[in-house]
Amino acid sequence: MLNVGFVGLGAMGWSMAGHLHRAGLLVAVANRSHDKAQRFAAEHAGVLALADAGELAGPCDVVISCVTADADVLGLAAVLAAKAKPGFVLVDTSTIASTSARKAAELLRAVGADFLDAPLSGGVEGARNGKLSVMVGGDAQTLERVRAALDTFAARITRMGEVGAGQNTKAVNQVLVAGIAQAVCEGLALGEALGLSADNLLPTLGAGAAANWFLDKRGATMLRSEFVPGFKLGLLHKDLKIVRELALAAGVNHDLIDLSLANYAALMAEGRADEDTSALIRLKRGR
Amino acid sequence: MLNVGFVGLGAMGWSMAGHLHRAGLLVAVANRSHDKAQRFAAEHAGVLALADAGELAGPCDVVISCVTADADVLGLAAVLAAKAKPGFVLVDTSTIASTSARKAAELLRAVGADFLDAPLSGGVEGARNGKLSVMVGGDAQTLERVRAALDTFAARITRMGEVGAGQNTKAVNQVLVAGIAQAVCEGLALGEALGLSADNLLPTLGAGAAANWFLDKRGATMLRSEFVPGFKLGLLHKDLKIVRELALAAGVNHDLIDLSLANYAALMAEGRADEDTSALIRLKRGR
Repeated sequence: MLNVGFVGLGAMGWSMAGHLHRAGLLVAVANRSHDKAQRFAAEHAGVLALADAGELAGPCDVVISCVTADADVLGLAAVLAAKAKPGFVLVDTSTIASTSARKAAELLRAVGADFLDAPLSGGVEGARNGKLSVMVGGDAQTLERVRAALDTFAARITRMGEVGAGQNTKAVNQVLVAGIAQAVCEGLALGEALGLSADNLLPTLGAGAAANWFLDKRGATMLRSEFVPGFKLGLLHKDLKIVRELALAAGVNHDLIDLSLANYAALMAEGRADEDTSALIRLKRGR
Repeated sequence: MLNVGFVGLGAMGWSMAGHLHRAGLLVAVANRSHDKAQRFAAEHAGVLALADAGELAGPCDVVISCVTADADVLGLAAVLAAKAKPGFVLVDTSTIASTSARKAAELLRAVGADFLDAPLSGGVEGARNGKLSVMVGGDAQTLERVRAALDTFAARITRMGEVGAGQNTKAVNQVLVAGIAQAVCEGLALGEALGLSADNLLPTLGAGAAANWFLDKRGATMLRSEFVPGFKLGLLHKDLKIVRELALAAGVNHDLIDLSLANYAALMAEGRADEDTSALIRLKRGR
């Protein structure tokens, strides 16, 4: 039986840690604002709240992290490497650069521990229902050691290659996510302007070749101008900056990435970074 | 029991007429190149091939058309109106301007007949499987009279409003279709350049928030550079010109429409109008 620790109790992480707890695997949690970790421990019997994430290396065989920035992951890898026993594994589910993932792996491998990059897709709904798509980069045997933990919140776990391949896959995923948001928001803004009723329009579009996850999950709310995340547009903007670097280095076209970066930057300049990505329809409506 | 005629035995129409035949509703067909109508009649016992589409108004209560251009539909409405009995209905499933749909309706209503615009989504797969989404504009009672015919090839039939509302809905659908093609092609081109294997990449993307019809149906073929339609990019370009006019008149944003028009025009200039819309990945790969 794995002893699992969890770092990062945000919109996704809180649900994921809950699944680990229900499976009887979760030993301890840590979070940047410690009061949230304490609240999680109070609501989940038998789980420790540690103020210092590095201390998780003591009781845990594996730590799963779901944080925001590259620096968060590298800092966590460093404090865990300082205390990790050989065989310890850090599985990072955040979206960061593949270069940062490889640096984190170096820190842990230097002490006989290991690292997997394992970014996610499926949104807050996927986290809540335990139906996330997990894109793994790293050693195949290490993945088998921790698979039971990932299984608690995954619909599908795919090993994409060595460390960094998970992040490269997530980059591709985010091009689709951002581009589909462009498509759905531009289309539904036109539908509104043409006076088509949402009650008819959404199921009609969903029954044909325009069908997609985002339309299904965000179509109705965006047409009511409800933009509670979901996935904060400021976070998608952060991801797309990483993706743009990759696309430039790879020499492929990045028209949609650039358009989405510009659009989300404009919304952030209006103070909307914490709105859902579907708030893009505000720009598509024209003004 | 309805007596149904069919005009336009293309990639979609051939399958749709087949469903009408199997339901015992199809009386006669016509097609611009008559030899195709003759071939259809030869393969479907009891179906007449008429050289003059206007003659369909004799034996048929309802004619369903699936043709290409606005002028085709207006020409058909004119020849049918010249011979239609009161109560006759033309149901046009082509993608044309809503203004053209309203003109066709005027021609038929002038002789006591009626018209529905009923464009489709779901692609050649939807036509083959009888699982199309049908977006109807026109009189509600007229729709009830012909519903049994549409049911033979529909997964869903939605009345969106008066004549033209079906075309307006299809315009929204095509913004999504074109934008999702942008998203999937730009994303998969990046995935190729990063060396991610299609066998892992496609199911991983499809299990999360990037899931969509186009990825599911065209992802594998485009990564093998197979661009057999499917949906010819020259036809999507034609549709998007209609959509752009609507978006301009409605005053909404049309960034993706413009990008797609430019991209498909570039591919058409290379002689690729008859390739599937997924051939957009050629441009996304960069060169």
